[in-house]
Amino acid sequence: MPEQDGCVIGILASGRGSNMAALLEACASGEIPARVAVVLSDREQAGALETARRMGVDAVHLNPRQHGSREGYDRALVAELRQRGVNLVCLAGYMKLVTREFLAPYAGRVLNIHPSLLPSFPGLDAQQQAFDYGVKVAGCTVHLVELAMDSGPVVMQAAVPVMDDDTAQSLSARILEQEHRIYVEAVCAFAEERVRVEGRRIFIRAPRK
Amino acid sequence: MPEQDGCVIGILASGRGSNMAALLEACASGEIPARVAVVLSDREQAGALETARRMGVDAVHLNPRQHGSREGYDRALVAELRQRGVNLVCLAGYMKLVTREFLAPYAGRVLNIHPSLLPSFPGLDAQQQAFDYGVKVAGCTVHLVELAMDSGPVVMQAAVPVMDDDTAQSLSARILEQEHRIYVEAVCAFAEERVRVEGRRIFIRAPRK
Repeated sequence: MPEQDGCVIGILASGRGSNMAALLEACASGEIPARVAVVLSDREQAGALETARRMGVDAVHLNPRQHGSREGYDRALVAELRQRGVNLVCLAGYMKLVTREFLAPYAGRVLNIHPSLLPSFPGLDAQQQAFDYGVKVAGCTVHLVELAMDSGPVVMQAAVPVMDDDTAQSLSARILEQEHRIYVEAVCAFAEERVRVEGRRIFIRAPRK
Repeated sequence: MPEQDGCVIGILASGRGSNMAALLEACASGEIPARVAVVLSDREQAGALETARRMGVDAVHLNPRQHGSREGYDRALVAELRQRGVNLVCLAGYMKLVTREFLAPYAGRVLNIHPSLLPSFPGLDAQQQAFDYGVKVAGCTVHLVELAMDSGPVVMQAAVPVMDDDTAQSLSARILEQEHRIYVEAVCAFAEERVRVEGRRIFIRAPRK
């Protein structure tokens, strides 16, 4: 079963899943040499599930209420991922905090995208936070996930200028374009095993052309 | 006395004064249409004082020990600035926190340059903090000074990439080039009265060509 070799991705999403869709498209086109085995969501109504199914990807709702604790829920997630051979997990608008139960079996293999230049503006509504602060340079960050929210080592960042006529919405849209770009690039680097982690510093080799 | 019209700048510096020198040069060349009336330092040995004198600018050491309190010291600073007609104050590596006594008479007219993309990495050794965090995008910020350190409204920011072979020192040098550039641009905008402040958002009109 050759398709079980190489990089097998699982995506966790709670919302409409635009970053998920960017990853699915890049895997489908071959831009990322990996296969997305499953999209998991804690929300039955997440647009991400519908989009994934439409793109021919297994999409599963796991209901947190059917699990007694965050840890129990995370064990169920891990079971779903493991039975499909997932070896790289991408959070894409996943709104639950993950626990040690989740991170231990996937140490160093869980990525997230956040719509700010971390460590500025962690948490919810990062773009609105940046807009309200009045920064002139906003951006986004792909990082490894650790137990503390939005604090893991930085894999990739992109700067995005704030314009005088921006609203939080227009700024968010400009950041989102860069999110799609760097998340695809970062996942590609993991799929091609071009990533070296040294403490909090992460080095990515250029791809072979 | 025509030179007392327009923008009259006072600079506060505690160190070698490389940002001070960039401002002095830009004023001397006419790039910034303003006159630097005085450089003040809390440290007698500050290289900034010597550089300012060499460039023909009045440079004064005010000894904090000769003033009973931070407030008393700041009143002495304000007296020095006022007697020279200063209407815009630029902090350039000034290591003391300013008090209400200083800010009240110069409300909205005190600028600082900080070597990070605030609100990331406030305080000392911002470049080292950024390097240790492992960010991929560093930078610098010109901001209005408020009582809380490194928290005033952002006037201008520049992003600076972090390279794989950077040290904290090489990163600092790359950031410093951008500090000089945006501090001159920002002070020029104030001197030409192209700045509009709306709460925490600051808008700068393009210069007339």
